[in-house]
Amino acid sequence: MFAHSRILRIEWQDCDPAGIVFYPRYFAMFDSSTTYLFEAALGMGKHGFLERYGCAGYPMVDTRAQFHLPTTFGDAVEIKSAVAAVGRSSFSIEHKLLKDGRLAVEGFEKRVWVGRDPADPARFKSQPIPPEVAAKLSA
Amino acid sequence: MFAHSRILRIEWQDCDPAGIVFYPRYFAMFDSSTTYLFEAALGMGKHGFLERYGCAGYPMVDTRAQFHLPTTFGDAVEIKSAVAAVGRSSFSIEHKLLKDGRLAVEGFEKRVWVGRDPADPARFKSQPIPPEVAAKLSA
Amino acid sequence: MFAHSRILRIEWQDCDPAGIVFYPRYFAMFDSSTTYLFEAALGMGKHGFLERYGCAGYPMVDTRAQFHLPTTFGDAVEIKSAVAAVGRSSFSIEHKLLKDGRLAVEGFEKRVWVGRDPADPARFKSQPIPPEVAAKLSA
Amino acid sequence: MFAHSRILRIEWQDCDPAGIVFYPRYFAMFDSSTTYLFEAALGMGKHGFLERYGCAGYPMVDTRAQFHLPTTFGDAVEIKSAVAAVGRSSFSIEHKLLKDGRLAVEGFEKRVWVGRDPADPARFKSQPIPPEVAAKLSA
Repeated sequence: MFAHSRILRIEWQDCDPAGIVFYPRYFAMFDSSTTYLFEAALGMGKHGFLERYGCAGYPMVDTRAQFHLPTTFGDAVEIKSAVAAVGRSSFSIEHKLLKDGRLAVEGFEKRVWVGRDPADPARFKSQPIPPEVAAKLSA
Repeated sequence: MFAHSRILRIEWQDCDPAGIVFYPRYFAMFDSSTTYLFEAALGMGKHGFLERYGCAGYPMVDTRAQFHLPTTFGDAVEIKSAVAAVGRSSFSIEHKLLKDGRLAVEGFEKRVWVGRDPADPARFKSQPIPPEVAAKLSA
Repeated sequence: MFAHSRILRIEWQDCDPAGIVFYPRYFAMFDSSTTYLFEAALGMGKHGFLERYGCAGYPMVDTRAQFHLPTTFGDAVEIKSAVAAVGRSSFSIEHKLLKDGRLAVEGFEKRVWVGRDPADPARFKSQPIPPEVAAKLSA
Repeated sequence: MFAHSRILRIEWQDCDPAGIVFYPRYFAMFDSSTTYLFEAALGMGKHGFLERYGCAGYPMVDTRAQFHLPTTFGDAVEIKSAVAAVGRSSFSIEHKLLKDGRLAVEGFEKRVWVGRDPADPARFKSQPIPPEVAAKLSA
C-alpha cells in the first residue's frame, strides 16, 4: 500500500494554555498528511486531482486518535502515513506521529470519495474510486 | 451520569472549501462541550476548578468521531454530552451533535486528570480524580 | 449606520501557551460578528443572502486591530460592531470587544463585495453593492 | 535590521468556503514567521529564548494587513519578514507574503516584550528588551 512521510514543526499556534498541542490540531495535521499522500501517489496537486476525477473531496466517515506523548512548540515531528485499505468508494489511512523517533500520536481514518449529487449540486454523493486512483493508492 | 447540552451555531470559519465543517473543528467543539459539562457539574469556571483541585488539565488519551451528516455555516446544532465512565484518574465522555434533531456526528473521548509533576513542573502526571469531582461527574 | 452587538465566551481553544487569546482568533471573532451584523441587517442567513444577491462573499481588503487588555478562557466578552462606511463596492466595519465593559480590542476592516468573474468562475470580481443592501447597512 | 524569509504551502485547512485563505490564517502565518525570525536572530528555539531572558512572550499591540491577491490550497508562498523598529520594550515587524513573486499580502505588527508581573504572576508586564536581543534584531 502507498505510504508517505513528512517532517513538520509544531508551532505556538498549535498549542493550548497547558503548553502542549491542542489535540484537534493533530487531526488537522493528519488531514494535510492525507493530502500530501494523495499528491505523492497521484503525481499532482489537490486542485488537479479534484478536477481531473470530478471529485468533490473525501469527507471523513470515522476517525480515531490515541495520544501517547505530548508535543510542544518547536518540536520537529515526523508523520508517517500509509493507506490501510481501499474499497469501492471508501479508503482508510493510518498515521503515526513520531517525536524523536518515539510514537507520540496514532491516527486512523476512514473516508469516502464523493462527487456532487447531480440531482442537487449542494449535496455530496459517494462515487466509486477511479480505478487508476485505487491502483496508485494500493501500490 | 452527569449530562449537559448546548446549542451552537456553525460559522463560516468552521467550514472548508467544500462548504462543510472541516472535521477537526468538531473535536474543538466537543472539547468546549466537555468544559461546559465540567463547569455545570462543578458549579465553577475552568480557571476556578483547575486552581481549586491543583489540576493542570485533562489531556486526551483516546478520541473517536463518526460522521453521519454534514453541517454548514448558519446551521444551529445541539451537542449533547454525557459522562460515560469515571475511573481512578481517567474518565470518558460521549457527545452527540444533532442537526434538526437528527444525529450528525458522534464523538467519544477518554481523558486523564493530570497535575504538574513535582519532580519536573514542565511535565504532567496523572492524578486521582478528587472524590467530590468524581461524585459530581457520576451524579 | 447599522450596528449589532453580541456576547460570546472565550474558550480554551482560543488561547495560547501564555494563557491568553491567540490574537488571530480575534480576527476570526470579528469575521463572525460581521456575518451576524449582515444577517441582522438583511433579515436572512449568509447562505440566503449570498444566493439572493449572486454574491460570492466579501473578502477582506484591509484590516487592523489594536489590543488594550488580554482576555482568557471563561471570559464573557461583548463585541459591538458598526458599519463605518458604505461605498460603491466596498464597505467598512468597526468592532469593539469589551471585557467587563472596558475596551479590550478594537478592530477595523474594509471589505469588497464580489461575485464570480463570468470570464473565469474560479476568480472573484468586485461588484456594486446592491442598493437595498447598501440601504440596510446605512440605516 | 534583521530579516528572515521562509516558504510555506497553503493548505486545505487554511481555506474557507470561497476556496481561498480565511484571512485570520494569514495573521497566524505571520505570527509563526515572527517566531522563525527571532529563532534565526537569536540562534535558539522559542522555549530557549523565553527561558533565557525571563520573557513571557511578545503580545501584539497593533497589527494590520492588506490583501492584494488571494491564495488557495496548494500554493507555495514566500513570507519575507523584517524588523522595522526596535524600541525600549516594543518592536515592529513587517511581513510580505509573495505568490509567484507577486505581493499578495502585507502585514505590519507592533509587539511588546513582557515578563510576568512579580506582584501578580497571572499578569504580564512590559520589560526592557535585553540589549543583546535588541542588538541582534537590529543587526
